[in-house]
Formats: sequence, structure tokens, C-alpha cells
Amino acid sequence: MQIRSADLSPRDAYRLLIACVVPRPIAWVSTVDAEGRANLAPFSFFGGVTARPPTVVVSVGWTKGRRKDTAANLLATGEAVVHLPPRPLAEKMVATSAEAAPGEDEFELAGLTKARSVDVRPPRVADAPLAMEARVAHHMPVGEGPTDLFLLEVVRFHLRDDVLRDGLPDPRLLDAVGRLGGSSYCTSTEVFDIPRPS
Amino acid sequence: MQIRSADLSPRDAYRLLIACVVPRPIAWVSTVDAEGRANLAPFSFFGGVTARPPTVVVSVGWTKGRRKDTAANLLATGEAVVHLPPRPLAEKMVATSAEAAPGEDEFELAGLTKARSVDVRPPRVADAPLAMEARVAHHMPVGEGPTDLFLLEVVRFHLRDDVLRDGLPDPRLLDAVGRLGGSSYCTSTEVFDIPRPS
Repeated sequence: MQIRSADLSPRDAYRLLIACVVPRPIAWVSTVDAEGRANLAPFSFFGGVTARPPTVVVSVGWTKGRRKDTAANLLATGEAVVHLPPRPLAEKMVATSAEAAPGEDEFELAGLTKARSVDVRPPRVADAPLAMEARVAHHMPVGEGPTDLFLLEVVRFHLRDDVLRDGLPDPRLLDAVGRLGGSSYCTSTEVFDIPRPS
Repeated sequence: MQIRSADLSPRDAYRLLIACVVPRPIAWVSTVDAEGRANLAPFSFFGGVTARPPTVVVSVGWTKGRRKDTAANLLATGEAVVHLPPRPLAEKMVATSAEAAPGEDEFELAGLTKARSVDVRPPRVADAPLAMEARVAHHMPVGEGPTDLFLLEVVRFHLRDDVLRDGLPDPRLLDAVGRLGGSSYCTSTEVFDIPRPS
């Protein structure tokens, strides 16, 4: 089957794209607004960019003609904590994708405990095994959605000891959730190795 | 454990970042140079950006002080085909990450058959169940690596019938490979659903 993008409605284009670009890591992003009120929401238009310095990209689409709280907060305060949600927190992660009123605290809505960050104001999810404190390095509006694309520079990594092996997160212990199409997710613990050719 | 990015060597920062941002989808990118010679290489600093229009982001780091062929070709010709490699093609996908001389054809090196694309010049991997013909929408140098970040607008999707269910790729049939840290990969076929909150 072939599909021209120009023939797709925006809704069908979205449904197709999220079913094609898989499995996607999930950025579970904590931010604060100018008054310091916390927000937490998941985004899977997310990825690595470079390690020099450690940088990730997150795209935050507008909803119903309005910039999302996460994007507004990133523009207002320039800071975030990006968590990779593990399988045991997947249901709470999805719960934080609910459209809460601006200023409503998704940590409380989902029953999550906050931990203080070191270099940035947004709190961490205390129970998350992996969190990256980050600052906005670049912002760019993209597309007709519109969408806010952010490059976030990671300034500090938090790694829970029980997911580490030889000083690095082990995928079987980290148990990070991948995002697929529809309302589907996958685990990332079925691991195999292929040595890189020289 | 906490790690300040500023305390990491470039190599350790890379090893840590690719073990943290997981599971990553793999863009197996076909391009051609100005003379029309084909190139094929995998990149996992890759993700969705927006569906209006369908757009993905791919970051291509320089190696040994040189822009990679994929990035040079994208800048020269502005076109690509992005495939999502399935598990049965994983070994061939990794084989195409070898540092071939510019102009060497990784399709031939890996024993892959080319199929003609419709809207762009780079050929498709004939055996890949999912391919997206795309054009460069934006290029931006990032970081100190340096790295070439590209936004690619998808103009046409190719989907093999046997991976579709209800007109969309089914993750269990698509069997797309995810990239983890080190030389590790994961399957994305262990699927679960969590309905989005209203």
C-alpha cells in the first residue's frame, strides 16, 4: 500500500505517523510555571540529538488552538526534568496526559511523590528510576499544528542504583516503556545484541 | 547515583545518553549524492515531530571531524527514504552502519535489493515493510560534536500489506527494532494498551 501524505486528513496523518515511527521513548516531562506550580506530562515525539553536550529533542503539539502547559512553562522558565517511565509507572504516566486545567498539579492527580531537583526548579518524580535535569537550549515553532520543538540540554542525570549495571542503566532493569500507535505501548526488555561492524 | 553532565567525557556522555533515552526507533536512511550514488545508514537519534505535515527529526553526528555521507547527501540533494527496520533485517541494518568510503553503496555491501521510489531519487530497501519518502524541511547544526539535525517532511508512505491491520501498521506484524545502549537492541512486539484519559 502507498499513501501520499497530501491525501491524508490531519487526524489520519497523526494516526499513521505514530504507528510508523516505533518504538518511541517517552519523555515524562516535569516543568513549573512562572509562579512555581508544577506540571507533569508525557511526550513521545522525543529523542536524542547529541551527547556534546547531552541534548534531547521534545516536540509539544498545540491542543485545541492552545499551547500546552509544558511548552508554555518551558518558554517561561527554561527548565525541565525528563523521566523515562518504567512499566510499573506506565498507568500513572498515562494518567498525567489528561487535560488538566493550567496550574493543576498532575503529580497530585496521579498520586506521585515529588523529589527536589538539584540544578533546576521543576521537581522530580520520586519513584522514577531515571530522571534528567535539563535546560532549554533552543525553541522552534514547527508545522501547521502548530508544534513547539525544544532542544533540551541535560545538565544532571539521576539514576537509581537498582537499574544500573557497570555504571550504566541496564535495559532489563530499567524496564522503560516504549510508545507505539493508537493507545498501545511496548516493553523494551526483550534484548538482543548485534556488534557494530568495525 | 547522580552524574553532572559537565563531569562526563564526551565518550561517557554518549554511552550514558544512549542507555537512558530508550527504546529508540531506528531511521534506516537511504540517500543519494549529487552523482546519484546511493547510501544507506541507520540513525537512532530520530523521532516524530508533528503530523501537520508528517515530519520526523534525524540527528547525524560528525565522525572523525567529517560530516557523514547521509548528512552531506541530505544537504546536497534534500531527499531521503526513511525505513523502520524489522527484526529479520536487523543484522543487515547494522551492517550498513560500517564506515564505507563515500560513494560506496551500502545496499550492495549488505546484500539488499533496491526498489524505485516515487517522489524522491533515493531508492527504497525492497525488503523493508515500511518506508517513508521524505524531503528536508529544515537543517540546523547542533552542539560541539558537531551534529547535523534535520527535519524531514514525509511525502509518501510505503506499507507492505502483511504488516497492516485495519489500514495501519500493527506493531506485532511490523516487528520494528528498537535501539538501546551499547550494542543492544530490543523487539517492540510485547504490546499492552492503556486507554488515554478523557
